Amino acid sequence: MTNAPGSLNLNVRGMGQSATLAIKKRCCGLRAQGRHIYDFGLGQSPFPVPSRVVEALRLAAPEKDYLPVEGLPALRESVAEFHRKKDRIEADPARVLIGPGSKELMFLLQLVYYGEIILRTPCWVSYLPQARIIGRRISLIDTSFAGKWKITAELLLRSLEQVRDDTRPRLLVMNYPMNPTGHTYSTDDLEELAEVARRFQLIVLSDEIYGQLHHKGEHVSIARFYPERTIVSSGLSKWCGAGGWRLGTFTFPADLDWLMEAMAAVASETYTSVSAPIQYAAVQAFHGGVDIERYLWHARRILAALSNRIVPVLSDAGIGVQPPSGAFYLFLDFGPVAHKLAQRGIRDGYALCDRLLEETGVAILPGGSFARSASELTARLSYVDFDGAFALAASENTPLDTPLPDGVVERCCDNVIAGAQRIADWVGESG
Amino acid sequence: MTNAPGSLNLNVRGMGQSATLAIKKRCCGLRAQGRHIYDFGLGQSPFPVPSRVVEALRLAAPEKDYLPVEGLPALRESVAEFHRKKDRIEADPARVLIGPGSKELMFLLQLVYYGEIILRTPCWVSYLPQARIIGRRISLIDTSFAGKWKITAELLLRSLEQVRDDTRPRLLVMNYPMNPTGHTYSTDDLEELAEVARRFQLIVLSDEIYGQLHHKGEHVSIARFYPERTIVSSGLSKWCGAGGWRLGTFTFPADLDWLMEAMAAVASETYTSVSAPIQYAAVQAFHGGVDIERYLWHARRILAALSNRIVPVLSDAGIGVQPPSGAFYLFLDFGPVAHKLAQRGIRDGYALCDRLLEETGVAILPGGSFARSASELTARLSYVDFDGAFALAASENTPLDTPLPDGVVERCCDNVIAGAQRIADWVGESG
Repeated sequence: MTNAPGSLNLNVRGMGQSATLAIKKRCCGLRAQGRHIYDFGLGQSPFPVPSRVVEALRLAAPEKDYLPVEGLPALRESVAEFHRKKDRIEADPARVLIGPGSKELMFLLQLVYYGEIILRTPCWVSYLPQARIIGRRISLIDTSFAGKWKITAELLLRSLEQVRDDTRPRLLVMNYPMNPTGHTYSTDDLEELAEVARRFQLIVLSDEIYGQLHHKGEHVSIARFYPERTIVSSGLSKWCGAGGWRLGTFTFPADLDWLMEAMAAVASETYTSVSAPIQYAAVQAFHGGVDIERYLWHARRILAALSNRIVPVLSDAGIGVQPPSGAFYLFLDFGPVAHKLAQRGIRDGYALCDRLLEETGVAILPGGSFARSASELTARLSYVDFDGAFALAASENTPLDTPLPDGVVERCCDNVIAGAQRIADWVGESG
Repeated sequence: MTNAPGSLNLNVRGMGQSATLAIKKRCCGLRAQGRHIYDFGLGQSPFPVPSRVVEALRLAAPEKDYLPVEGLPALRESVAEFHRKKDRIEADPARVLIGPGSKELMFLLQLVYYGEIILRTPCWVSYLPQARIIGRRISLIDTSFAGKWKITAELLLRSLEQVRDDTRPRLLVMNYPMNPTGHTYSTDDLEELAEVARRFQLIVLSDEIYGQLHHKGEHVSIARFYPERTIVSSGLSKWCGAGGWRLGTFTFPADLDWLMEAMAAVASETYTSVSAPIQYAAVQAFHGGVDIERYLWHARRILAALSNRIVPVLSDAGIGVQPPSGAFYLFLDFGPVAHKLAQRGIRDGYALCDRLLEETGVAILPGGSFARSASELTARLSYVDFDGAFALAASENTPLDTPLPDGVVERCCDNVIAGAQRIADWVGESG
């Protein structure tokens, strides 16, 4: 950053751009130099926006009016219906808030809520910087590879009991299927967490933006078990392939009307409302239909087959990695091969990712970007560097009730498989 | 607002939605009850988005990738070219920042900048609430009807000298053609203001979103005279009729790279980037062309003719009002008829607007929404409640080098003229 004068907010001073966006820039730069890159940095869906949704945007192109802050009424209805059908939870259209990405909504929530924010590590890259910008107190719950990076009821309880203040206002942020690990919670996990949350009257922000990308289509929301104080977050970015469109949703319970109203008030003084044509198009996305269900099943099958293909490659190289349940991430633990890396002078996650990119062209993000210790040898791999449209078309040749034949992901996702192999080979090289 | 617990940020507590959005909601509610409304509340362009720009959005509908935080490179180039051509100022594409509305960019600027913010009153509705949300110190410069609501070099100097701290970091926010008054600065005004700004090393945020709606097409930017520390703000909302699309732009001078970088860092943790299809379409809007020039000239001619038609109606009723130079606002001073209003128990701007809406169906916004004293009998009138497409088509029958014939605005903007007449009649009624 340019040398900044004293008139820069100290909460912002020295802050770079979001790690995921920064790695995207770096990959573009290297590609421009002619390097072949395996871009496993940014977590962007590889699949195109379903064609019905694109058509809806075309039709809505002349829509130019400012929409209500909370969102287009038809869209709020469609989002509520989506959660009622998909997640079997109560969802009232009047309690749906539409924002330009769920990241912005999370920022507004942190801004208006005066309380402690509880996060798991590893956590999504933007939660911590947002808290820092606003100056909020964060409490971190570290999870482990052995525990599949899940917050357990026991870990949560231990964290809450550290402070002798049972009625302290606290917001627990959950995210599942998880970014950056690809794991998710079982129904039992969620019931136990809900019980602790209820005892401490936590507000839960349940970020379920990957819900529809559970590889078996079996996503369950904690709102089923703790409806009274759970905000469910979703959006178009992941399951609908429309990250660049920027549309996220929060669905509130009646008890939290005061939070939604405060967020809408701030929204009215900041982004005003989400782009009108995008909102009209999103009605179709959340409304769903057979074509969108089919799209989702193909996407899930491809992601599951691809993760099944690359997990053993990495695992055989001695890297700690577990099969994921959803989304498109693996969280790699290079701890077991630390001695090999140390021989090459690599002693932390940042050095690991820098050297890997430099020496192999594979871009992954260090655990430090996800609030893990900088010294930890972990990293997130997004297995999305393939042509999603081509892969969907290939998958359509195989009935959905049978597994994808061998060869489909080899053909469609060759860059991902080659990149995983490069990581494995690189780890195997002597120092 | 619902009864809120202690865990609501005090900066936000009790805050309602933006006054302009709130009046829009209220008008919708009254219309739903069957009332005829003259909606002069919200400042939304009545004109459709130019058809070439709508077509560009249709073509860009499948664009789904996250774009760079600062904006699509082609759009940043197009915005820089726009300012170079239209405003004859230096503008570097690398120093253009795209945001989801200039309101959001202004919020980010206030968030990252640690200094005093200087505003004129009457000012645009969102500047003050933004400062309150963030907890920034604001210094207000009150202007007057007699001075056409302009900040003069003298007023600015007096305000700056109140604090004996010449090197204090200060940001002067200017907005012209002005919301809420429709006036603008002359070249002489701007040169004098630039001189004072330079002496105190002020940063100037020059909000020129109405620049292309100067009724004679003679907008001049202060960046011509104070290029080194002026940020020029523009966007699609006003001159391009695309308020609901949500796209604003800031163009920085080289000296303020540190501010732009800090804003981009916060943007990367909040809204991420502006909706991709919208950015692709905006390239066409800023690129311009004969069709867009024609559109602008017709829009200006209609707005000028309409303001010429209604100003005398209001003026003859004893209301203080001056012919505007641009945009689509009049700032009415009911001070001269205060005695008549007092007979009816109306003693401040809020009561004035409430009673006017109730008794005549005319919605205008009190001066208090623009940081004037609540007791002042002023109000903003947005003369936009007409069918802009119909008016453009009617205007196209008359060559652009001749004035609009009598009858065109009568036919196309009858609701605006009738509403102005209702205000005049209402003021004339005995108590």
